[in-house]
Amino acid sequence: MAEIKLTYFNATGRGEISRLILAYANAKYTDERIERSDWMTLKPTLTYGQMPVLSYNGVTLAQSITIARFLANEFGLAGKNNIEKAEADEVVDALVDLQNAGYVVVFNKEPEKKDQLLEEFKAKAKTSLTHLESRLKSRGGQYFAGNQLTWADLQLFNILEAIKVLLPAPAEDYPLLKDLSTRVGDLPNIKKWMETRPGQ
Amino acid sequence: MAEIKLTYFNATGRGEISRLILAYANAKYTDERIERSDWMTLKPTLTYGQMPVLSYNGVTLAQSITIARFLANEFGLAGKNNIEKAEADEVVDALVDLQNAGYVVVFNKEPEKKDQLLEEFKAKAKTSLTHLESRLKSRGGQYFAGNQLTWADLQLFNILEAIKVLLPAPAEDYPLLKDLSTRVGDLPNIKKWMETRPGQ
Repeated sequence: MAEIKLTYFNATGRGEISRLILAYANAKYTDERIERSDWMTLKPTLTYGQMPVLSYNGVTLAQSITIARFLANEFGLAGKNNIEKAEADEVVDALVDLQNAGYVVVFNKEPEKKDQLLEEFKAKAKTSLTHLESRLKSRGGQYFAGNQLTWADLQLFNILEAIKVLLPAPAEDYPLLKDLSTRVGDLPNIKKWMETRPGQ
Repeated sequence: MAEIKLTYFNATGRGEISRLILAYANAKYTDERIERSDWMTLKPTLTYGQMPVLSYNGVTLAQSITIARFLANEFGLAGKNNIEKAEADEVVDALVDLQNAGYVVVFNKEPEKKDQLLEEFKAKAKTSLTHLESRLKSRGGQYFAGNQLTWADLQLFNILEAIKVLLPAPAEDYPLLKDLSTRVGDLPNIKKWMETRPGQ
């Protein structure tokens, strides 16, 4: 069995998609959580000065989506061939764009701009979710790639959860996305993770 | 032989890494280039309202890095196993971060901020390239993944070329990056592409 350690802040953020993949796979791993007070000491020791970082049988990998894709490949959640892998990658990338748009609001340091940025985010979310709903439909409506669960479906669930701080019911107007996200959340290992995960 | 069409602006930008992979592989494909004047007509017809778009034996894929990774997989440039693929992905993601930092300067619409943004970009580039130099060294110094050419090495060449508009000799202080990028540029198919590519 592989020796796995995932290092990230004690928060969901850019580490959570990897944790969801590991939870789904029921993998044993060390969920190392760094407190903000220790971050500036750790940062200069990291390859890109960033977290998350994955240690996998002694190999260290950085970049959040690289780590998640690697875990998805190792645990059979990446798609069965190059096309399916790319179909999943495409959806993950579109969802990261949406996540990044949310971070623009959350990490904004100018309080007077908050309302305007929130409106811009809502418009961006509407466009993204409309595109994703139609992409899911074009691929059969059940799953985003290969008509089987992949990490793209976990990422949908993850990002819809994450943007609830800005948009309380993000999938309300998107029946296929809402249904897929609900099905992901009802998977026993995912449900258990969501009920017991730390850092909330 | 696969039927391939890559659609993007008549520019390098986010389409060029895929074109470099196709050039290296000496693949036959349609290099469809959209003029700015036609863009607003085309945009609403696209899955995410974005380019590049790849058509591959009738399957359509979006998201620039998804497309490039798919082509890298198809043409044997992605790495030989999950670890090597992730090592290449990690470097590609770090280089995209650098590219995005460059776009903040290039697409900035407030001329009075240009100098400040350029200084911020130069600081970011210094950090990124220092990290990448040390990553390349830790992986043996010849190539970024698996000690063979992968799309991560093509992406290094691509991004170092792209940021020359902001930083004329970006790899001057990074001997391993400079050497790798030079070796990539000297590959016959890459050299030929750089000498004959349109849209410059």
